[in-house]
Amino acid sequence: MRSRFHQGLDELRARLLRMGGLAEQAVDRACQAYKDRDLNRCHLVLEGESLINATEREIDEMAFDLLAMQQPMAVDLRFILAVTKINSDLERVGDQAVNIAERVMDMAELPAAELPVDIPRMAAAVSAMVRRALESFIEGKAELAQAVLEMDNVVDRMRDEAFISLVKAMNERPDVTRQALDALLVARNLERVADHATNIAEDVIFWVRGADVRHNAGIEPNVPQGVTDTN
Amino acid sequence: MRSRFHQGLDELRARLLRMGGLAEQAVDRACQAYKDRDLNRCHLVLEGESLINATEREIDEMAFDLLAMQQPMAVDLRFILAVTKINSDLERVGDQAVNIAERVMDMAELPAAELPVDIPRMAAAVSAMVRRALESFIEGKAELAQAVLEMDNVVDRMRDEAFISLVKAMNERPDVTRQALDALLVARNLERVADHATNIAEDVIFWVRGADVRHNAGIEPNVPQGVTDTN
Repeated sequence: MRSRFHQGLDELRARLLRMGGLAEQAVDRACQAYKDRDLNRCHLVLEGESLINATEREIDEMAFDLLAMQQPMAVDLRFILAVTKINSDLERVGDQAVNIAERVMDMAELPAAELPVDIPRMAAAVSAMVRRALESFIEGKAELAQAVLEMDNVVDRMRDEAFISLVKAMNERPDVTRQALDALLVARNLERVADHATNIAEDVIFWVRGADVRHNAGIEPNVPQGVTDTN
Repeated sequence: MRSRFHQGLDELRARLLRMGGLAEQAVDRACQAYKDRDLNRCHLVLEGESLINATEREIDEMAFDLLAMQQPMAVDLRFILAVTKINSDLERVGDQAVNIAERVMDMAELPAAELPVDIPRMAAAVSAMVRRALESFIEGKAELAQAVLEMDNVVDRMRDEAFISLVKAMNERPDVTRQALDALLVARNLERVADHATNIAEDVIFWVRGADVRHNAGIEPNVPQGVTDTN
């Protein structure tokens, strides 16, 4: 039989997955709204934000309670810390979905314009990153997380391409400046979602390998630092 | 005499303040670079990023060690969790400074343009927010942190104004489209720095009041949630 503490960890994991599902759904809805100029979906994204925020808060409180409940083992401690960080990133993914929905609402007031950018393609790449980052968390597999880190470069390149061609469009066709700017900001928001997926993948690796791979520090386990002998 | 654990907490606090100093400096340098079209300062910001990233990692490892060392009291636990969250936000403030420096480098390749936006004024407001958020952390004062939350609306308004007048400039003067876009993205980056200052202020309040004020949940202390009776 699992202890109360380990049941708590299971519940924490389940809640974080629900949080991940909400954040993913928000991004998918916002991107679908972009594609279809669909104001209803925009409103769904805006209305969904408070549930995402409330879920973030619950998860943080639960992580706090688990830490306060007993002295966790090192691996459980890393897991709980990873959950609180992933939680923050998922909430910010939700914020980006709101930003995208707001841009779509702005665009919907303007004449539709043919723009040199494939937002749905970029959205598909970004959604795949979020999904895989969550899968790497579910499976506890650092290799899956590592694959997410590599996908980030692809999204960055898409963003750069979008930037160049949309600025060109703004210059050549002043009548679509605002639409092009909206699309450019949507591309930036998607890039930020990809950054959050990257953060999540790094937190999974931190938890699984007990190592800190952030900022290209390598994936070898760190020698634990002492508390008093540092500085 | 303070225990080894409490010496560790003091050291953690000192390191987070150094991290805060680095992040503040990066934003100030990037904004000064904008004002003077100063590529040297841009390079300083870009080079400073790795120190910020390394400091973030050290603080996280130290927080982990402190949590693993002994069962912290609830107030110390909240403090350590607040430190790890503030740490992430400061690192992201550093990222925004890098983004601003990159925009300035782009602008420096283009003819200088008179633009309808007061970036230095916005930068001053944002820097004040970061500084006060860190002060609220040093002093452990929720009132100071509360003031930061109120300043965020001012910055959001500045960003909206910048957005409107820069889009207008893009429409009317296609020759400065790219400069106007760069300025607009700098304004957005500053707004994001303000958002991070807000997050920091919320984390200070969470620590000091033992309450979660995020997402307008009010500042009354929460009734602690049980671990098994939630769902």
